[in-house]
Amino acid sequence: MQAVTSFLYDRGFDILEHQQHDDRMGELFFLRTEFAAVDGTDVDELTAAFGPIADRFDMSFTFHDERKPRLLVMVSKFGHCLNDLIFRWRGGTLGAEIAVVASNHEDLRPMAEAAGLEFIHIPITPETKPQAEQRMLDLVEQYDIDLVVLARYMQILSDDLCRQLEGRAINIHHSFLPGFKGAKPYHQAHARGVKLVGATAHYVTADLDEGPIIEQEVNRVDHTYTPQALAHVGQDAECLALSRAVRWHCEHRVLMHGSSTVVFR
Amino acid sequence: MQAVTSFLYDRGFDILEHQQHDDRMGELFFLRTEFAAVDGTDVDELTAAFGPIADRFDMSFTFHDERKPRLLVMVSKFGHCLNDLIFRWRGGTLGAEIAVVASNHEDLRPMAEAAGLEFIHIPITPETKPQAEQRMLDLVEQYDIDLVVLARYMQILSDDLCRQLEGRAINIHHSFLPGFKGAKPYHQAHARGVKLVGATAHYVTADLDEGPIIEQEVNRVDHTYTPQALAHVGQDAECLALSRAVRWHCEHRVLMHGSSTVVFR
Amino acid sequence: MQAVTSFLYDRGFDILEHQQHDDRMGELFFLRTEFAAVDGTDVDELTAAFGPIADRFDMSFTFHDERKPRLLVMVSKFGHCLNDLIFRWRGGTLGAEIAVVASNHEDLRPMAEAAGLEFIHIPITPETKPQAEQRMLDLVEQYDIDLVVLARYMQILSDDLCRQLEGRAINIHHSFLPGFKGAKPYHQAHARGVKLVGATAHYVTADLDEGPIIEQEVNRVDHTYTPQALAHVGQDAECLALSRAVRWHCEHRVLMHGSSTVVFR
Amino acid sequence: MQAVTSFLYDRGFDILEHQQHDDRMGELFFLRTEFAAVDGTDVDELTAAFGPIADRFDMSFTFHDERKPRLLVMVSKFGHCLNDLIFRWRGGTLGAEIAVVASNHEDLRPMAEAAGLEFIHIPITPETKPQAEQRMLDLVEQYDIDLVVLARYMQILSDDLCRQLEGRAINIHHSFLPGFKGAKPYHQAHARGVKLVGATAHYVTADLDEGPIIEQEVNRVDHTYTPQALAHVGQDAECLALSRAVRWHCEHRVLMHGSSTVVFR
Repeated sequence: MQAVTSFLYDRGFDILEHQQHDDRMGELFFLRTEFAAVDGTDVDELTAAFGPIADRFDMSFTFHDERKPRLLVMVSKFGHCLNDLIFRWRGGTLGAEIAVVASNHEDLRPMAEAAGLEFIHIPITPETKPQAEQRMLDLVEQYDIDLVVLARYMQILSDDLCRQLEGRAINIHHSFLPGFKGAKPYHQAHARGVKLVGATAHYVTADLDEGPIIEQEVNRVDHTYTPQALAHVGQDAECLALSRAVRWHCEHRVLMHGSSTVVFR
Repeated sequence: MQAVTSFLYDRGFDILEHQQHDDRMGELFFLRTEFAAVDGTDVDELTAAFGPIADRFDMSFTFHDERKPRLLVMVSKFGHCLNDLIFRWRGGTLGAEIAVVASNHEDLRPMAEAAGLEFIHIPITPETKPQAEQRMLDLVEQYDIDLVVLARYMQILSDDLCRQLEGRAINIHHSFLPGFKGAKPYHQAHARGVKLVGATAHYVTADLDEGPIIEQEVNRVDHTYTPQALAHVGQDAECLALSRAVRWHCEHRVLMHGSSTVVFR
Repeated sequence: MQAVTSFLYDRGFDILEHQQHDDRMGELFFLRTEFAAVDGTDVDELTAAFGPIADRFDMSFTFHDERKPRLLVMVSKFGHCLNDLIFRWRGGTLGAEIAVVASNHEDLRPMAEAAGLEFIHIPITPETKPQAEQRMLDLVEQYDIDLVVLARYMQILSDDLCRQLEGRAINIHHSFLPGFKGAKPYHQAHARGVKLVGATAHYVTADLDEGPIIEQEVNRVDHTYTPQALAHVGQDAECLALSRAVRWHCEHRVLMHGSSTVVFR
Repeated sequence: MQAVTSFLYDRGFDILEHQQHDDRMGELFFLRTEFAAVDGTDVDELTAAFGPIADRFDMSFTFHDERKPRLLVMVSKFGHCLNDLIFRWRGGTLGAEIAVVASNHEDLRPMAEAAGLEFIHIPITPETKPQAEQRMLDLVEQYDIDLVVLARYMQILSDDLCRQLEGRAINIHHSFLPGFKGAKPYHQAHARGVKLVGATAHYVTADLDEGPIIEQEVNRVDHTYTPQALAHVGQDAECLALSRAVRWHCEHRVLMHGSSTVVFR
């Protein structure tokens, strides 16, 4: 820690926010420092200068400038998360730029275009899945994307794509206590009489729906809720959990660590 | 519904509370009516008199008087739920009488006895499990028990015992979004970076930890929580969910329906 | 209760949902019955037919048909609630029709018009307040409005208007534990170190911000939140509380009772 | 920050946990560092050695050793918070030692004594209030008390006592959205139809019920709750909020700052 702060002070930088976490089990140490650099400072130059210090302490590190990360938002037919992301983006509270929206369906084109966003249709069939996934990667390249947001994108990504996007893609899915596997989870939840339904925002990994958790949200329900009503409550939780996860990621507050995360809110 | 209310009005009873729920999918209809009977009314006599009406409408029904249900509380080494139940019982807000406490360990004897409760030690080994379970059933008989509360009793009940206690035993266990199966769940939850830990109170069925849910509670955590700290937060949720489930059951507010419940709070 | 159900059964109607609540202190009795009428049934005819029964039991009552209530949504500059209401309306989960949007500012015209909604600008100054309020009442008449939704409309309604809209207007405002009166509440909340910020949806009455509460929502915060960040969290709570209150009102689930409400969810 | 870490590193201490917070409005900087000192380290000696560094940076600071703070728990007739504190203390999760319990009533003597705690009765009348408060201060002295916990102590402390205990006394009280002033708050809350009831744990200051907030908790209710039932739900929230506030204070995680707090959980 001292090495980091000395490095910044010596350059005349002002530390604005600093958080650290000591993983008492794994003997790891996590650190996030937000600082105001002097004019003309360059990320590449800082990275090069800090390299030897990082080597000495066996640190992994990244410098980020204040540019807002650019998002590719992937959707299918459900619009609640896209609508929420668009609203926060336009109000300036998302912490990111939505660069482009893509979907395997045409349904949400009007919502995206009404917000002035480009909407790209990438139809997908079992046969065309490899090409469709390559298309996504091309978009990441073409639009200079920092983060792929799966905002209720109902296709399972191939393990290969998951690996290529590791740490750069966030997914949202419904969650219950206890969890329900398989199809029609809200019907299963209804059948068990669940009293809480929620949502989990996590990084995409090759292991389906099991990536490192960034944020969770939950709402109370009761026996009067039909499976459909449970799903609507779940969607409210999805909007909140996803938008927080995206913002925290884009403010570089989330450090991925194996299957877990450190979130410096 | 009209048949029920006519039956009560004709006897000069006063309806205090009435709730009903229409299961739109299953074509079932649930009803709870709390009423003030005239003096000298008898549950057996009412049950006999209502029988023909119930037959006509293909109803299942039970009459309960205002006697507080009697509990057998089963514990092992964790005392947080027992402590909470005792406190509410003594304060008159549990809605039940604790008749006796039993455990496969001696650890919580002082807590039970300090509250003036009888504590029965039922040691259990793989070999003596059948006898130990028979002992539990004997206690149910002997102490005129209405409800068995598994307040962090760390033994898995045999399928046979579960069936004998069906609808008369409530269990509490930790819950997460998503669920974690197997040993050391708090370590698993920690390893995934969960942000919410909770608890589920449910009826005991032969299907382990998968009975009809009565109540759930959840609390927020973050990466600074060790597995041990997660467990403490989970215990707070367990106390709340279990005591509510016991109270609602004892006020006859919970109707079990297949794998689900209707809870008329 | 029996009088109500007999009335419906005698007409061959099917009861779909029925809830009642007995106010043990006030000796009042609240009842909501949702039923499927036979074809050709008319609200006016039912109202006339039920009149004598209501008189006999000293009941207040209203029949509603399944027509979705029509909303006038009043806004100022904050768009989060309008955006949320529009999304749910378009997705069919609001339980209401947005008939028209009106505002004392032009800022949200694009949001309303992008959704195909008429937007009416009603500028207001201390001098023109009576005319502006009359304009609102004219809109209620002209658009056949059932409910006025103050979706962060930042003008205080006159006592006279409040009275005219009593039971037909819902307001949303931020809420804290404990409450903060006066200007800049988020700054006050920040200055006290609040850990929870929330929102209250309530009926408008002549008594400012003190009407009968329909729904509340709350979210956890900590010392790292600036007043601005607290306000954003509060806005998330406002969206959820307001949309639920509107839906429940429009499904005729909310009964106003003096300064309180009964909400049959 | 660098000055702090250098000071510790130079002595060969190991930093275990470090949190800081930058109050962007007030230009203040808060810091908590938990470290493992080398054997034979002394708080007084460290305090003396750090003095000049603190002076240079205009810092306020305190060193704490790992001794568990000692509590005087003040109660009246409600036992839920005392019961909860005792349970956590005995289980080792409170982070503090309960040294003694005092009360203006005799009701909770059995609960305290059953836990092996000394219970001191300090009757109080308007006339004897000064002497009773002096008695409390004497207990603080006599039992070497670090923190006074007002665990539903129903007497208002004099301004003078509040000032003497500033930063060393934590109070708990019920909280609502919005707040209700005056007597019978649960009746007021019931009369308004509140949907959330909660509790606030805060430092005692001369300004009644308005001290810096340490923790808050909230639970959902509905129209079926009587004022009495609302109070029971509020008590559950009180237990949770108070025990967390006590633990965080005793782990030196709470920094009081004017009317606010920084809580490094």
